[in-house]
Amino acid sequence: MKIAFLGTGHMGLPMARNLLAAGHQVTTWNRTRARAEPLAEHGARIAETPAEAAQDAEAAITMLADDEAVDEVVFGDAGIYEALPQEAVHLSCSTISVSLSQTLAEAHELQRQRYVAAPVFGRPEAAQARTLKVVAAGPADAIELCRPLLDAVAERTFVVGEDPSHANVVKLCGNFMIASMIETLGETFALARKSGVVAATFLDVLNGTFFGSPIFGGYAKRIAGGEFQPAAFTMALGLKDLRLLLAAAEAAEVPMPAASQVRDRLLTGVALGRGQDDWSAAALLAAEQAGLQD
Amino acid sequence: MKIAFLGTGHMGLPMARNLLAAGHQVTTWNRTRARAEPLAEHGARIAETPAEAAQDAEAAITMLADDEAVDEVVFGDAGIYEALPQEAVHLSCSTISVSLSQTLAEAHELQRQRYVAAPVFGRPEAAQARTLKVVAAGPADAIELCRPLLDAVAERTFVVGEDPSHANVVKLCGNFMIASMIETLGETFALARKSGVVAATFLDVLNGTFFGSPIFGGYAKRIAGGEFQPAAFTMALGLKDLRLLLAAAEAAEVPMPAASQVRDRLLTGVALGRGQDDWSAAALLAAEQAGLQD
Amino acid sequence: MKIAFLGTGHMGLPMARNLLAAGHQVTTWNRTRARAEPLAEHGARIAETPAEAAQDAEAAITMLADDEAVDEVVFGDAGIYEALPQEAVHLSCSTISVSLSQTLAEAHELQRQRYVAAPVFGRPEAAQARTLKVVAAGPADAIELCRPLLDAVAERTFVVGEDPSHANVVKLCGNFMIASMIETLGETFALARKSGVVAATFLDVLNGTFFGSPIFGGYAKRIAGGEFQPAAFTMALGLKDLRLLLAAAEAAEVPMPAASQVRDRLLTGVALGRGQDDWSAAALLAAEQAGLQD
Amino acid sequence: MKIAFLGTGHMGLPMARNLLAAGHQVTTWNRTRARAEPLAEHGARIAETPAEAAQDAEAAITMLADDEAVDEVVFGDAGIYEALPQEAVHLSCSTISVSLSQTLAEAHELQRQRYVAAPVFGRPEAAQARTLKVVAAGPADAIELCRPLLDAVAERTFVVGEDPSHANVVKLCGNFMIASMIETLGETFALARKSGVVAATFLDVLNGTFFGSPIFGGYAKRIAGGEFQPAAFTMALGLKDLRLLLAAAEAAEVPMPAASQVRDRLLTGVALGRGQDDWSAAALLAAEQAGLQD
Repeated sequence: MKIAFLGTGHMGLPMARNLLAAGHQVTTWNRTRARAEPLAEHGARIAETPAEAAQDAEAAITMLADDEAVDEVVFGDAGIYEALPQEAVHLSCSTISVSLSQTLAEAHELQRQRYVAAPVFGRPEAAQARTLKVVAAGPADAIELCRPLLDAVAERTFVVGEDPSHANVVKLCGNFMIASMIETLGETFALARKSGVVAATFLDVLNGTFFGSPIFGGYAKRIAGGEFQPAAFTMALGLKDLRLLLAAAEAAEVPMPAASQVRDRLLTGVALGRGQDDWSAAALLAAEQAGLQD
Repeated sequence: MKIAFLGTGHMGLPMARNLLAAGHQVTTWNRTRARAEPLAEHGARIAETPAEAAQDAEAAITMLADDEAVDEVVFGDAGIYEALPQEAVHLSCSTISVSLSQTLAEAHELQRQRYVAAPVFGRPEAAQARTLKVVAAGPADAIELCRPLLDAVAERTFVVGEDPSHANVVKLCGNFMIASMIETLGETFALARKSGVVAATFLDVLNGTFFGSPIFGGYAKRIAGGEFQPAAFTMALGLKDLRLLLAAAEAAEVPMPAASQVRDRLLTGVALGRGQDDWSAAALLAAEQAGLQD
Repeated sequence: MKIAFLGTGHMGLPMARNLLAAGHQVTTWNRTRARAEPLAEHGARIAETPAEAAQDAEAAITMLADDEAVDEVVFGDAGIYEALPQEAVHLSCSTISVSLSQTLAEAHELQRQRYVAAPVFGRPEAAQARTLKVVAAGPADAIELCRPLLDAVAERTFVVGEDPSHANVVKLCGNFMIASMIETLGETFALARKSGVVAATFLDVLNGTFFGSPIFGGYAKRIAGGEFQPAAFTMALGLKDLRLLLAAAEAAEVPMPAASQVRDRLLTGVALGRGQDDWSAAALLAAEQAGLQD
Repeated sequence: MKIAFLGTGHMGLPMARNLLAAGHQVTTWNRTRARAEPLAEHGARIAETPAEAAQDAEAAITMLADDEAVDEVVFGDAGIYEALPQEAVHLSCSTISVSLSQTLAEAHELQRQRYVAAPVFGRPEAAQARTLKVVAAGPADAIELCRPLLDAVAERTFVVGEDPSHANVVKLCGNFMIASMIETLGETFALARKSGVVAATFLDVLNGTFFGSPIFGGYAKRIAGGEFQPAAFTMALGLKDLRLLLAAAEAAEVPMPAASQVRDRLLTGVALGRGQDDWSAAALLAAEQAGLQD
């Protein structure tokens, strides 16, 4: 397929490479052009603007940092909105707000383009290894059209409905679940350690009882070892996602007190100048508040 | 080994049966004698008092409801404290407070008895199937003495230290982690459903992404299906455990805001007269607070 | 002075009347024109658009519901932004976000207009009785220019700085303090009542010990008597203000866990369909969660 | 009247002096005898044990640190329980748990003694100036008997019921209200300051709008000025009272999420080694979490 790929950062670069490897014809664009250039060796064309990349694409994939970036790439000067052909699909893989996703759905429909929200679970290594999990929502035919693309970048795609914003809700819920588990781990490690239990021993019990999932086990290991650098996902990004979650929850009139609390923990990290630490460093805050020194 | 088994309720009965099946010589006692009697067919002797059961035992196992019950069975009239021979072990499997566990450790030492705290993770079915996980702490020689007993009732034993109360801390942390996950599930299901995502679809995503562990998957399934009856572990018991956790945390000077919040959720359930529902019904409270009707 | 008065609702109407009574020349505009008409009898001119009202005013006062309304009246079609003369002051009395206030300050400066943020504490009766308290911030000369207007509508004006948004921060903090006091009252009344203390007795103690301020005493009286209708300030409006507060706090990187909790309480009220109750009905939620029936 | 006065610390000493000044015949006892001796000059007799002080008293007043101290002075060796004559009143002025107060009521009844709970609001200076406020509960005749004593130590007595523990509930609620106000002040000062508002200016607004009561104004002044030393009431004591409050609330099945949060704030202070700071230093924690440096 002819694809425009917008945003070749830590996540986008390996995803675009996998699309090229699967035989798709990819035109990329990135705000900092140098970060897109490695793809040229793999056969990608580099465009000067999002519009140029999108102009004869069957699908435009956006993999960008936040609402502002997506808004700019879609609706800004030389954005894809005017350029993308009718019937083509905007496959939006970024973690963005539910309200922007709803806005995009409506806007693309006016333009007779199609819109699929398809945020991903996974880190850069998973993107590289093609083990991402995608949560997709949108019109069934549009999702079918994107299927080869999704298969090229992800291990598995969960289709959660026809309303694109449903995928964003599910993605934000997922990130909250991780952050909440980190908070709980942080508090329990603080108590266990301060009570005299060795962190590695506590980790063994957790691994042997609760943690089938590599997600929880991985965070517990970081926390047990105090390894908050380098960040795989920063506190600042975690805060952003919790903010989006709570905004969606307020719009839907759903009180989420645990999410509010986790948000405040991440905000504390950011306020203390640790926004670039891994978000598992929320556990460090819990330990410090307990008077633990290291 | 010659064992006294005190407390043959939902958990204790199958545990005692497994000890008999493993060839141990068991004398049981239960406050309501009728609930101990089925064990007679399997070869157990039924004692009239805890003291009578303990008087020539090598190990006395307590599997009781709460601090009050353990206190009574150990230190009350005809309790095991005066009766248990020197060098014998009190193997305390109940989920009790850190402070009572510390008191027991000191008291048994005065009497030249030994004390091992060994609370268990698992439900009655796991007790029956011998798939419990035990978290044990105490003097190494005492734990070794109990090893055949632990192997007879559990799939695996985690030894977390020489100070018995460490096992209680770990057990309470584990129950908090489950309760916290329930709270998080409750909030996310409420948001997902109110946003229009089908609960079963959301469950599929969770199972396919986060949940390797049967613990989380099992609770998520209950919540997705609204199956809060019959209770496997009640809100009232969950509240008790969170209370014990927070007491231990205050004694250790460890603030646990997420645990406080989860405690308040369980207390709300109890205040509304739902203390006998499964503790996963905390999710029902979250849904109701979001204005969801079923 | 020649004044444009935009927004003649419950608060704006009596304020505009007081300005007329003080001898100012007032041109009013209101989205629903009928609500402005009573002012004609007192000598006001009714304009068809905000721009028409502002076109030769020395000061334009906005007293509107929320950010959206202010944005529309200022920057929308026939808004005051293009119409207000150079050197004239926009006196913004609405409770709006810190970020909109900052945007307005910058925008008016570009246009060589002046901008003062002057949100008010007080209810419609206070507006009528001219006992409002105003929190004002902006350039000193602009505030001086507005002084006769402030004196005509308020009992007292607190100048909190030259940066207009400071007034908005202080106003939002004030509303949070009230909401927090309501939450605390709600919880304590629930405990007192459920423990058997008569609500009126508890109120007497509070009045005789803590409550010099009519604000707290007034809310405590409502809560003690269960008088949540008619609403003087609704849960929905309280929720809006807490949302603005938390947005300002996040921008300033200030964790406010108590504010998050109060927000969730108000959101629960709104989710349960009680958004139009007085915000003191947060106390009713606390009582209900305690299992109290009335 | 013939009075036994047990506990002549910061609060008890001036209270006992006021009783002597009012012409009562006082026998005092204090764990550290030296702290009772200044009263001898004012005519008090110093007893060697609580029992000796109580043996022919018409009323025994306890003004002690906590549950443990009261328990010891009443039920311990040479405690007042066996010594106090029938019909005499135990007037319990300490801030103790609801459950201990209930235990005392039942115990004294068995002994045909009378029991009145009468915790006080106010600090040592108020005790000296006789401006304490007392919250009393107990049998009407017993309170009448104590009336001259209450009048001698307090400005005003609020009778809140016949069940003594009601007074303890009300007292604990009062202390929670103060702590909650401190938390709210702490968060708002942090936001105001970090947004650029001068603390003294913010204080002026609060004083001019919300704060009729000297209680809130006094704390706000401390917080605005960063004056957390010397402590008038420590974080450690505040934590104790919040713990008692939450225990009473759990017994009554009343969820108090704001109280849980305030408790966690005070516990953080204690965990960080600041338990002897004034409890208004909770505001310092809020400021620090916001990244403010002083």
